[in-house]
Amino acid sequence: MSRNMDINGERLLSRIRQLGAVGRDAEGRLVRVAATDEDRQGRDLFVAWARSAGLDVHIDRIGNIVAVWQGGANGDADPIMMGSHIDSVIDAGIYDGSSGVIAGLEVITALMEARFMPQRPIAVAAFTNEEGVRYAPDMMGSLVYAGGLDVEEALASQGTDGTRLGDQLHRIGYAGPAEPGFLRPHAYLELHIEQGPILEQVGTAIGVVENLQGISWQRIIIEGVANHAGTTPMQARRDAGVAAARILVFLRDLATRTGGCSVATVGTMRFEPDAINVIPGKASFTVDLRDPDTERLRAAEAELAGFLRDVAAEDGVAITTERLARFDPVVFSPEIVRVLEGAASGRQYQWHHMTSGAGHDAQMMARIGPAAMIFVPSRDGISHNPREFTADPDLVAGANVLLDAVKTLAGK
Amino acid sequence: MSRNMDINGERLLSRIRQLGAVGRDAEGRLVRVAATDEDRQGRDLFVAWARSAGLDVHIDRIGNIVAVWQGGANGDADPIMMGSHIDSVIDAGIYDGSSGVIAGLEVITALMEARFMPQRPIAVAAFTNEEGVRYAPDMMGSLVYAGGLDVEEALASQGTDGTRLGDQLHRIGYAGPAEPGFLRPHAYLELHIEQGPILEQVGTAIGVVENLQGISWQRIIIEGVANHAGTTPMQARRDAGVAAARILVFLRDLATRTGGCSVATVGTMRFEPDAINVIPGKASFTVDLRDPDTERLRAAEAELAGFLRDVAAEDGVAITTERLARFDPVVFSPEIVRVLEGAASGRQYQWHHMTSGAGHDAQMMARIGPAAMIFVPSRDGISHNPREFTADPDLVAGANVLLDAVKTLAGK
Repeated sequence: MSRNMDINGERLLSRIRQLGAVGRDAEGRLVRVAATDEDRQGRDLFVAWARSAGLDVHIDRIGNIVAVWQGGANGDADPIMMGSHIDSVIDAGIYDGSSGVIAGLEVITALMEARFMPQRPIAVAAFTNEEGVRYAPDMMGSLVYAGGLDVEEALASQGTDGTRLGDQLHRIGYAGPAEPGFLRPHAYLELHIEQGPILEQVGTAIGVVENLQGISWQRIIIEGVANHAGTTPMQARRDAGVAAARILVFLRDLATRTGGCSVATVGTMRFEPDAINVIPGKASFTVDLRDPDTERLRAAEAELAGFLRDVAAEDGVAITTERLARFDPVVFSPEIVRVLEGAASGRQYQWHHMTSGAGHDAQMMARIGPAAMIFVPSRDGISHNPREFTADPDLVAGANVLLDAVKTLAGK
Repeated sequence: MSRNMDINGERLLSRIRQLGAVGRDAEGRLVRVAATDEDRQGRDLFVAWARSAGLDVHIDRIGNIVAVWQGGANGDADPIMMGSHIDSVIDAGIYDGSSGVIAGLEVITALMEARFMPQRPIAVAAFTNEEGVRYAPDMMGSLVYAGGLDVEEALASQGTDGTRLGDQLHRIGYAGPAEPGFLRPHAYLELHIEQGPILEQVGTAIGVVENLQGISWQRIIIEGVANHAGTTPMQARRDAGVAAARILVFLRDLATRTGGCSVATVGTMRFEPDAINVIPGKASFTVDLRDPDTERLRAAEAELAGFLRDVAAEDGVAITTERLARFDPVVFSPEIVRVLEGAASGRQYQWHHMTSGAGHDAQMMARIGPAAMIFVPSRDGISHNPREFTADPDLVAGANVLLDAVKTLAGK
């Protein structure tokens, strides 16, 4: 492969930092949550860059942004698609999602500047609500794009703040006319930070992601009896908070028992009435269970359900569960994985086979076309946190591997 | 004692219901939290009743309302004081506090209507922020009145909603000119619902409260590391939420071990960033520990402190604690207790000696004068809950015992 074409590392890195400066709150925290004003500011910046690069920008009904380079010949052929997301968690880092979207735009720009003649269109997408902080399920935009969730149902989904996603997309000007899935990918490639410690541990810049663990999200609501904290004997209590605490400890032990395969997280918790001298009458929280093995994930869900029955009986509380999201493990396309390995090897980069612990838009796009992912290292494995960091050379290396893989796939 | 004087049961009960209708939110929940507009509405109603009864209404600097009947002779003698509070928890019942304030007003009104000639003034007080839901410590108004807390410090206390109590009292028009403690009680009597199951179990309408358990309140803040829920191995986590859950379970077991003497409650809980797919980097919650025995309360606090050190070491989190309130157990005046026993026996009511599990304004007033309390039964022991209920005849019986006790003490 010709060594004479590279992405523009300076432009890539400066754009990652520019986008990272958009959507800061009063305390300077990055809070670019889906369909907020901050999200709109980030979207506007990406759209401006894509238009200035000469790409056709399409917005679909769920708010996905798809920027397309028709290229020369075969404008009607299925495109090579790249993409990721620009929405963030609360108090996020600047790399999660954004680096993949900006790298995709950078790859197209580099190909255009090099007068590359693709055999098919090349597109980069920024998918709506990948993080799922405000609206469930996460990876919603790509799920809808791939036909896994009805667009009307998704638009109707209610946020943690009581808002309706459809209304908020309309409010920020990103309820577009295009039908989700209007372009079917000939192949889909996504660059993303690892968000885990493995690449740093093995000392490798490039992770070639072969598969992705399954995800089970549910909301658990415990109803006990609110009562006076001073006059209600311990044995007479029906304390929803203590019942919730027992479930947290159980989940920690359950996931730890599997020896590092399963992970379990309770990220949100709410007590009612939430008063210092009142026994909680209600506790509601979310459970995030993940495992790369379908059977083990099902078994963990079943164990949890059994423990919930025990707690309900022992603590005299009523427990209800609501499924928020459920995705089986995904295996990526071996062909695309080989293309990524070749691209990395072609640049003399060491690469490492990986299983993704996080959910990604690529797992949804894999439903409608061959897909795979490139990971770059996350320092200390930290993400969803301001301390999230990926070294500049690793970002440039990952984007160049993406470039070469797209050249290979689009050159055919 | 003459049987020809009784309180007006109809007026007592109708006023308890009238006040109980004040301070309802959109869902109809009673939320008359200290220094809110709802609290002001309740205060205004009580002040109107007191003025129409011909009492002198004083507001002190911490917002306590003291309604005084000068009576005939000895207007300068120390008064017999009654009182309780009209602030409530969130989603409260109508009896907690209010029944004591209204019964006190009813006692004075009945004495006036019967042309009773007291040997000293008789007063009824509605103390500010007894519940402590919004501002800590609880029983704040009576604590300041008794000189146990500097008024400036109390006015500066910050609410769970970030407000300053002094500003809010000023806003609702109850930042008064009187100096807290401007009247020293010759004796202080408080009627209150039991908020526990004992009187119902023993089948007695009147509880004569001899002592009151100690209370220890603290806020615990756990700092871990927020990280990705899918990519962070269990053993690499520093999960503030799981650490908090371990402490809840520990407290439940600690209090249960004492065999019904200690009670421990975690009524509030907050995770940050509070997102479904982010490991909690921070958890903050409150601990309410109570025991009638000073030594056992100290021992429980020490055991908790030791466990916090263990959790910090085992889970790799930083734990800080802040003392919100600390009151040693209180023993009431044997003389006043005897007067209450005599008043109950004089009406042929059975009565039962009790220890209060809840904190009450009486424990603060006991610092500046002889004090004791009357309890009336709470159905199923439930309070701080809309299902809180005390039967009408029990409320009337309690108020008549209060009347006869005040007659005895004011007649001397």
